[in-house]
Amino acid sequence: MKNIEQYIEEHKERFLDELFGLIRIPSISSIAVHKPDMYKAAEYWKETLLKAGADRAEVYETTGNPVTYGEKIIDPAKPTVLIYGHLDVMPVEPLELWKSPPFEPEIRDGKIYARGADDDKGQAFMHAKAFEYMVANDCLPCNVKFMIEGEEEIGSPNLGAWCEANKEMLKADVILVSDTGMIAPDVPSITTGLRGLAYWQVEVTGPNRDLHSGMYGGAVANPINVLTKLIARMTDENGHITIPGFYDDVEEVSADERELLGRAPFDLEAYKAALDLEQEDGEAGFTTNERTGIRPSFDVCGIWGGYMGEGAKTVIPSKAYAKISCRLVPNQNHEQIAELFKTHFEAIAPKTVKVEVTSLHGGQAYVCPIDIPAYQAAEKAYMDTFGKRPVPVRSGGSIPIISTFEQVLGIKSVLMGFGLGSDAIHSPNENYPLEQFFNGIKTIPKFYRYFAELS
Amino acid sequence: MKNIEQYIEEHKERFLDELFGLIRIPSISSIAVHKPDMYKAAEYWKETLLKAGADRAEVYETTGNPVTYGEKIIDPAKPTVLIYGHLDVMPVEPLELWKSPPFEPEIRDGKIYARGADDDKGQAFMHAKAFEYMVANDCLPCNVKFMIEGEEEIGSPNLGAWCEANKEMLKADVILVSDTGMIAPDVPSITTGLRGLAYWQVEVTGPNRDLHSGMYGGAVANPINVLTKLIARMTDENGHITIPGFYDDVEEVSADERELLGRAPFDLEAYKAALDLEQEDGEAGFTTNERTGIRPSFDVCGIWGGYMGEGAKTVIPSKAYAKISCRLVPNQNHEQIAELFKTHFEAIAPKTVKVEVTSLHGGQAYVCPIDIPAYQAAEKAYMDTFGKRPVPVRSGGSIPIISTFEQVLGIKSVLMGFGLGSDAIHSPNENYPLEQFFNGIKTIPKFYRYFAELS
Repeated sequence: MKNIEQYIEEHKERFLDELFGLIRIPSISSIAVHKPDMYKAAEYWKETLLKAGADRAEVYETTGNPVTYGEKIIDPAKPTVLIYGHLDVMPVEPLELWKSPPFEPEIRDGKIYARGADDDKGQAFMHAKAFEYMVANDCLPCNVKFMIEGEEEIGSPNLGAWCEANKEMLKADVILVSDTGMIAPDVPSITTGLRGLAYWQVEVTGPNRDLHSGMYGGAVANPINVLTKLIARMTDENGHITIPGFYDDVEEVSADERELLGRAPFDLEAYKAALDLEQEDGEAGFTTNERTGIRPSFDVCGIWGGYMGEGAKTVIPSKAYAKISCRLVPNQNHEQIAELFKTHFEAIAPKTVKVEVTSLHGGQAYVCPIDIPAYQAAEKAYMDTFGKRPVPVRSGGSIPIISTFEQVLGIKSVLMGFGLGSDAIHSPNENYPLEQFFNGIKTIPKFYRYFAELS
Repeated sequence: MKNIEQYIEEHKERFLDELFGLIRIPSISSIAVHKPDMYKAAEYWKETLLKAGADRAEVYETTGNPVTYGEKIIDPAKPTVLIYGHLDVMPVEPLELWKSPPFEPEIRDGKIYARGADDDKGQAFMHAKAFEYMVANDCLPCNVKFMIEGEEEIGSPNLGAWCEANKEMLKADVILVSDTGMIAPDVPSITTGLRGLAYWQVEVTGPNRDLHSGMYGGAVANPINVLTKLIARMTDENGHITIPGFYDDVEEVSADERELLGRAPFDLEAYKAALDLEQEDGEAGFTTNERTGIRPSFDVCGIWGGYMGEGAKTVIPSKAYAKISCRLVPNQNHEQIAELFKTHFEAIAPKTVKVEVTSLHGGQAYVCPIDIPAYQAAEKAYMDTFGKRPVPVRSGGSIPIISTFEQVLGIKSVLMGFGLGSDAIHSPNENYPLEQFFNGIKTIPKFYRYFAELS
């Protein structure tokens, strides 16, 4: 039996060729003209899994883009790992900023440059190659299932229903996902938390038409003036959100876990310099990483009303709008928060205007406990490859499908990400260091081994 | 000597024909293709004045559109009335809402329908015909000067300089303007005040690029959140403006004048119903008409930032903007107010953002004292025609050129408007009732007589 390092050394050129074949398919899910590419990429994944040793692999239709599912069941009594990844990518605009064409992968300075190099073709492909290694060398210790979807970049609108319809087939003990990052090549980390989201649109209506600000100014409520007052009242001078009941279910993170989270290296001065900020902001009593990791936030994502053109127009608009969102933390129910905000915002509105709050979007937060076997297996696997215990990180972002998996399938996900902050995902010149790609392939079989042992 | 009523009766068809000739020239000042029409209209006015009895009339070039100037000096020792009007009109879009073509005047239900029927071709033409009557019937009691400009609808950008250059020629004892309205045919009124204006654009910059609201939400100041807080702090719960020093120079209107202003008929329920408002708004301690007439106001005329499209995008924008204006009252200096706001707004901004305030526009307020001979002459003239003492009205709007006249020429203006609220100026189906047109022509010679007597 070859070890993974030897296997990679012997097959690395082929691994890259195969990955590049996948990358060359411009599977942009948000652009309708690329629909055939979604099927091409799904077929490519099917072939990849079959060649790697899957018992079966198939392209499944959904209401939207296809999902490739494959599996190898070595013994139903053994634990099962379900790999989740996505075959779709983000658009590539602005094209002129790319140094090499986005769908013609190129290696420069030890990095693969291409759309999807990291997110999520490169990262998901590591799982195919690790699987191939374990089958070829007869060291697969668990059952394996793959679920590679085609709509992650547009919010996975159909995957929840597809999971619901295929619950039995998807049964597993853990979902393993490589679609996040780690702090640095020498600072391994595992994302253990994702924030939830509640998102509203607010419409404030004053007079029934735009008015001359001279004839009416001072006598009629201006919906923009009112909107700014209402929004301003949603947070206080300490950065607390003032919506009654908002914090009732907020998970109190233990002092121990806060201490552990605090070990993630963080340079506040560098952070501020990178964003050109004189001063950071946020809730009193928490560090910057805690503010994004374990505390909810309140942000106006968009606002508009009245005259937005050049120069001066003197108008009291009839309407003003805002898009408002809260990031939520574990235990906060996004539907309940959506209702709390709506009730409060409408209740404090003055009678001089009409206010309408519409809930646009929401998702639950997710947390992966650091004491479950799957997390501990991941921790050990990273230690073997990177020589250091990975830091658990609560990410400020949301991957709604991860909490959907928990709700629909009842399975926890472990987010074994190998991406770096410099990978420019969603941006021009997306890249993925070869070292991270191969280190990922090395780490994954170790996870399987530890997971089988600890389960 | 014929009286004015008889003269109108004999010449009314010709008066209308002549006015219609002027209206048919599509002198839209904001649309470059109509430049030749500005000259046509200016020539038309020149001919009109010469035919009416002017000693001389000429079309003057300015940096922009021409000004027609004409005069009849009967005796340099006698008082001089300077008529101001404008020959340009607003655009006509949306054309499909007009019942008859905007530049083909049509009489329906006793009203002239056309662009410029009221504003300001119809109203200014009344002065030409009143002048013609006084010359023809040898009852002109004063010297008369006419200044008809071509850029009022685009803010009179060149008239101030032209006045400055022609100060001597424009010397007069009063400027008479018919470019405003009266409350109703049976409620004569004279506009005695116009508010001033200060107008700013505000830019709030947070991070140096748009950020993911998950990764950064709660740790970095969101410029929209901050902008709403800053704007919210500009007014208090009583509708007072909180900018330090803002009210220092505000004219205190005497109890007597407030009582007189309060005589203007006003139906608050009808006002609210017309605007579909459950409740009016404004500064505590003042009536609706006082809030727009004698008190300054603070309005956000536009606001924008972040995502304004369909659905939900989770972003912390780098920048947020607002267009903010204050209407000012007599004695407030718009330049000083512009500075006070800028200083205050920038001073209270937190260090988490950068704030830039740019002054876009400004104008002084104007007030016509009700105890000067010109106002009293106007009052008596209206009483003769309409049988009632006209109500002095402080308009909430601004006509910046009126305060420019006061600054440059040192002459007060009397705003003898005969328009009605239903005239739809600046809108489709602009109209001017024949009764108002002829009543205006009747009233003007009376003004001259009283003014000559009282001066």
